[in-house]
Amino acid sequence: MAPPKLTYFSVKGLGEPVRFILSYANVEFIDDRVNFVEDWPKVKPTTPFGKLPVLEVDGKKVTQASAICRYYAKKCGLVGKDDWEDLLIDATVGTFDDMRQAISTYFYDQNEESKKKKLDLLIKETIPFYMERLEKQIKENGGYLVNGKLTWADLWVVSLLDLVNKYTERTLEEKYPLIIALKEKVLAIPSIKAWVAKRPVTDW
Amino acid sequence: MAPPKLTYFSVKGLGEPVRFILSYANVEFIDDRVNFVEDWPKVKPTTPFGKLPVLEVDGKKVTQASAICRYYAKKCGLVGKDDWEDLLIDATVGTFDDMRQAISTYFYDQNEESKKKKLDLLIKETIPFYMERLEKQIKENGGYLVNGKLTWADLWVVSLLDLVNKYTERTLEEKYPLIIALKEKVLAIPSIKAWVAKRPVTDW
Repeated sequence: MAPPKLTYFSVKGLGEPVRFILSYANVEFIDDRVNFVEDWPKVKPTTPFGKLPVLEVDGKKVTQASAICRYYAKKCGLVGKDDWEDLLIDATVGTFDDMRQAISTYFYDQNEESKKKKLDLLIKETIPFYMERLEKQIKENGGYLVNGKLTWADLWVVSLLDLVNKYTERTLEEKYPLIIALKEKVLAIPSIKAWVAKRPVTDW
Repeated sequence: MAPPKLTYFSVKGLGEPVRFILSYANVEFIDDRVNFVEDWPKVKPTTPFGKLPVLEVDGKKVTQASAICRYYAKKCGLVGKDDWEDLLIDATVGTFDDMRQAISTYFYDQNEESKKKKLDLLIKETIPFYMERLEKQIKENGGYLVNGKLTWADLWVVSLLDLVNKYTERTLEEKYPLIIALKEKVLAIPSIKAWVAKRPVTDW
């Protein structure tokens, strides 16, 4: 059986949570990187829904970073001990994604005026609102986001910090010591540390 | 034990997939509806992350429509038979959500010019792109979205058609006979049919 092939652009972005979890699960994978200008127009029609990441397993292509992460989380013990714990993990992943979507909507806004307004709202309201609550959630969960133990929600959030930081040109976690501690903890996991050491160096 | 309380605005929106699945699972629930103008400013600070829907179960509040739906789908047999099937369900839910997000970004755009451009792109490209592929997926899966059988992905998509149709002021499924057939099939399920018959009549 060929190893799974993860196709994404040559940045961390939404590919990185999948690369984190595959590394954590000790799944050898092909880290297929598509150049946005040269390759993507050719690759796009071969994807299920015109988006990356795509994971190809035994000739079958699947999409959606969170769906792929959840699948591998089940294989490597990063899910909850019951359905309720899984619900809390899924809710946290979805919540961080709401913040990421708000940031993406700002980043891709092509109107300078409304883009500026969006950034202002993000910096003053939206981002502190989410980050304060995530910080509090970590405090209430023994240093992790959910269930007092490492779950794929932690890998999800930590691996996506580079993306939201790039889009906002800030370090969103800088005022949140527990988020920083969580990031350090995740990046110190041997399999994650090994992945980060060997991954291609990219701007973001 | 008090029944779970689902808090959402008095529209179908992102509350409706949860109401569909609770109905399908025969879970009696309190259909708590918040008026956006009068109630929401008071309710918002009491929610975990400032967003609805929120489900309250035994005094614990959880968020994120898809996370809540997945939780109840496990209780009522609307998940896959294995992790791979669950991955396909999750990917489909996430894919439809990508389309919904694109439509929401258009709908909430406050700049008339860029809003018009976004609608144009949605109608000419984005929506047909997704809808054609979803139609094909239903064709390949025996009349359902995934795994040749009813899953919570079907309830998710069908229950959210009203939202995307409202936002675009169109009937997005009108050119897609298999999506229409899926909608009719889901709405004919006795528990869903009973819910639709008794739910408050709202504009969208």
